[in-house]
Amino acid sequence: MPTLTSPAELRAAARRGEWRGTTGGHCPAYQQANLVILPQDAALEFAAFCTRNPTPCPIIEITPPGEPEPARCAPGADLRTDVPGYRIYRNGKLAEQRGDIRDLWRDDLVAFLLGCSFTFEHALVEAGVTPRNVERDTMVSMFVSNLACVPAGRFHGPMVVTMRPIPEARVDLVRELSGRYPHAHGAPIHIGDPAAIGITDLERPDYGEPVPIQAKEIPMFWGCGVTPQAVAVKARVEFMITHEPSQMFLTDLPRDGARR
Amino acid sequence: MPTLTSPAELRAAARRGEWRGTTGGHCPAYQQANLVILPQDAALEFAAFCTRNPTPCPIIEITPPGEPEPARCAPGADLRTDVPGYRIYRNGKLAEQRGDIRDLWRDDLVAFLLGCSFTFEHALVEAGVTPRNVERDTMVSMFVSNLACVPAGRFHGPMVVTMRPIPEARVDLVRELSGRYPHAHGAPIHIGDPAAIGITDLERPDYGEPVPIQAKEIPMFWGCGVTPQAVAVKARVEFMITHEPSQMFLTDLPRDGARR
Repeated sequence: MPTLTSPAELRAAARRGEWRGTTGGHCPAYQQANLVILPQDAALEFAAFCTRNPTPCPIIEITPPGEPEPARCAPGADLRTDVPGYRIYRNGKLAEQRGDIRDLWRDDLVAFLLGCSFTFEHALVEAGVTPRNVERDTMVSMFVSNLACVPAGRFHGPMVVTMRPIPEARVDLVRELSGRYPHAHGAPIHIGDPAAIGITDLERPDYGEPVPIQAKEIPMFWGCGVTPQAVAVKARVEFMITHEPSQMFLTDLPRDGARR
Repeated sequence: MPTLTSPAELRAAARRGEWRGTTGGHCPAYQQANLVILPQDAALEFAAFCTRNPTPCPIIEITPPGEPEPARCAPGADLRTDVPGYRIYRNGKLAEQRGDIRDLWRDDLVAFLLGCSFTFEHALVEAGVTPRNVERDTMVSMFVSNLACVPAGRFHGPMVVTMRPIPEARVDLVRELSGRYPHAHGAPIHIGDPAAIGITDLERPDYGEPVPIQAKEIPMFWGCGVTPQAVAVKARVEFMITHEPSQMFLTDLPRDGARR
């Protein structure tokens, strides 16, 4: 795929069915978002869960029931068509994968757009600390930690974290840079010994792909937007739609934050 | 009232009916919050409204339907008793004011805790720029601006803003300091000419009290947590409970922000 800089162009390509890959590395000036769509009866507890766990679940926008347009973060966009790929879950099981969900849309569906670490990875690349997963064009390594999320109703479970190995000398810079993006998981939740947060083997991630860790590199861990999906699967919600991993929704919000 | 530093003590005093005044100036190390309680059927649209207008409506926590404990921001607290004063609205009209809402609580009620400028006022005081409303111990001046909020379902209307006159030489400092508190309305949304945001007379605020503006002072305007209450009144929601103006909910979250 050519590198795109305009969120509207990327969304239009996804809408035409011409964009099915990762959105990582594209539109570096804008925020990318995880998508979770739930029926109204589960959505309030899910909203509570997200507000109680803002590091893995930073809310960018919630849409009113039945409304597929994210009027704040991408006016005119359509969440039923503008994401490259969708996953459909029924009773906690992955039931279907597809590029369009127009025929599944219902008046009681509520969409959650949650911050994504693709947003701050651009800042690391620009500062000359390209994360290994970006360098190798692989999915970031994700692990189920032993950090408990604050529960809300039917939603509870451990925090899923991403891991990026960073050269010792750059750890402070990377902490500081990512801390500027609270809308994209913010500063790391842990730096160093994986066992301290319940991770036994960095070569066997629970999601995504492993990356080699080189001498004088430290593993850094961030809250991950897979967390809310994992708790929703575990809660066996009747019906849920999410984006395909790494195929995010591109917003029109500037990367560094937005006012109003 | 003696100045309290512990949120738990202030909440306990409110619960015992021994605290009925403003919370401004108390517990300077902690975040204070606006409270809006709504029935479930209006709550999702209200959540969407808040996410679409994060400057006037920064979400600190949403509770699941029926749950009066804000498990993230003040575990063990009870939103039915721990706020000094409550206002009850029915069909958009103020119906009652009281110190306890235990007997009004219902399984379908959802509580929203939204950031409050009392939080960043502490930082201004510590930096030696005490806002005039703090100096005079009056309610901050609030105005209905001509800045339209992004609507969500039944909720729409203009942004309500607070105004504080600040010495010219301190405007940059105050902008920078308040900008560190995005969970408490963040940086000003406007500085200078009130007419530019539709305000005609600074001596006649729409809410709160007027303050004198001295020579070489500039009016600075911030998003205000009265905004969501004003749109909910305008939407004539069947039932709503809020805090009494300036009698906020005291959270256990550190003033400068909180992780996880």
